[in-house]
Amino acid sequence: MSATSGDRLERLLDDVRVLKDIEAIKRVKHAYFRCLDTANWEELRELLHPQLQSKMVGGHYHLEFDNRDDYLEMLANSFNSEFVGQHTGHHPEIDILSETEATGKWYLADIAMSLRRQSTTVGTAIYTDKYLKTNGAWQIIDTGYFRIYETVTATPEPPDLSVHYLAEHGRRLPVS
Amino acid sequence: MSATSGDRLERLLDDVRVLKDIEAIKRVKHAYFRCLDTANWEELRELLHPQLQSKMVGGHYHLEFDNRDDYLEMLANSFNSEFVGQHTGHHPEIDILSETEATGKWYLADIAMSLRRQSTTVGTAIYTDKYLKTNGAWQIIDTGYFRIYETVTATPEPPDLSVHYLAEHGRRLPVS
Amino acid sequence: MSATSGDRLERLLDDVRVLKDIEAIKRVKHAYFRCLDTANWEELRELLHPQLQSKMVGGHYHLEFDNRDDYLEMLANSFNSEFVGQHTGHHPEIDILSETEATGKWYLADIAMSLRRQSTTVGTAIYTDKYLKTNGAWQIIDTGYFRIYETVTATPEPPDLSVHYLAEHGRRLPVS
Repeated sequence: MSATSGDRLERLLDDVRVLKDIEAIKRVKHAYFRCLDTANWEELRELLHPQLQSKMVGGHYHLEFDNRDDYLEMLANSFNSEFVGQHTGHHPEIDILSETEATGKWYLADIAMSLRRQSTTVGTAIYTDKYLKTNGAWQIIDTGYFRIYETVTATPEPPDLSVHYLAEHGRRLPVS
Repeated sequence: MSATSGDRLERLLDDVRVLKDIEAIKRVKHAYFRCLDTANWEELRELLHPQLQSKMVGGHYHLEFDNRDDYLEMLANSFNSEFVGQHTGHHPEIDILSETEATGKWYLADIAMSLRRQSTTVGTAIYTDKYLKTNGAWQIIDTGYFRIYETVTATPEPPDLSVHYLAEHGRRLPVS
Repeated sequence: MSATSGDRLERLLDDVRVLKDIEAIKRVKHAYFRCLDTANWEELRELLHPQLQSKMVGGHYHLEFDNRDDYLEMLANSFNSEFVGQHTGHHPEIDILSETEATGKWYLADIAMSLRRQSTTVGTAIYTDKYLKTNGAWQIIDTGYFRIYETVTATPEPPDLSVHYLAEHGRRLPVS
């Protein structure tokens, strides 16, 4: 094998590793949103690094977490049986920094209906994430967003839900 | 060429085939949603395998089909000239099982306005698909979803449509 | 190196170039939508070719541009400090035509709230784009869409915005 074709093969191996890693990281975030809105905490846990750092800033909240367990506990309380969430992640811009480190930007569009609080929050946000590859699997180790816009609307009339997956699969809130 | 670089080339060929197939399958589903909301049944037909199995469960419907023709007939009746559809597929998670078989998960967000029935359905769902490569082209051979949530709202006032593509391109309903 | 494995390497190089270009072009459009809704004109400018052709047809507008500067000026006036935009691009179908030319289809879903005009426009559209690679970077050189549907709704009550990024980052409109 000539030096030249050897070099080309090395570059190819590198290019293909990067393409595979980009696809793998997209899948982590894609699975994250699927698990989030279906309250699938067991599968979602595996997508997050134990030392997860998180910082999300909205109009009426400023949430910070420095580990996966606290973050998951917040999610299970939020995506409860009296909640409906629609979280879609758009426009991934993934940068592979090394064989185990990457960053990503995403454009979130979300709708959050709280039947308990009789309130619906709608908005968009730009996520900035960091990913770490541990034991062969990519995980989110740092995540945060700032909002482009957010509206919070009182909804005293509950939405006319003909299907409500979280009613069965979300955590029961204590009776208030 | 040494055995080692030969092995690496084999692995590379396999990795690149998988990456190409993932992109090709995403395109099939992407074209599907474009054709759906524009009532382009001629192009959509080519995206489906003749033996398509389909099962979609909503709050007020449970639709099952076991062939492409019946499925297309249902679509043409649904996406009629008095209908507006917004169907976006998010968060693909594609697994290539072999050179001709694959599976996929998608997160659907949809809005369906029926001007005839004066009703708007909004919701999300998780799709599970199977894909088959036949004569060099991937097609959907099995598709189905369960809903995360769905609302059905009476809309006696028609939406103030300044553009309505299906009014011209959708099938005319019989006068009721 | 045998002729056969040399041929396979050539095909691989070509396949990987195409996969990298598809990902690079998706990123251009992804960054475009992020920059659009955050009024980041400096970064957005780099995503567009100086000879950009643009043609967008809605219910109450027919916008055509034949250069980047005029197009950017229109955007800066539209995405002003009394505006909220939510533009998400779905379902990319990218065709790489050569090492420097490509085309793409996208499915746009958009919400545009004008606080000044007390009006909200909602709809979807199919984009057809052309991309050109110049000095190693892909840029949009031709873009246009037709709408699937569009509604324009009077909103005399302003949306209850708890976050409004453009209020600070969008261009100030002259007092009317």
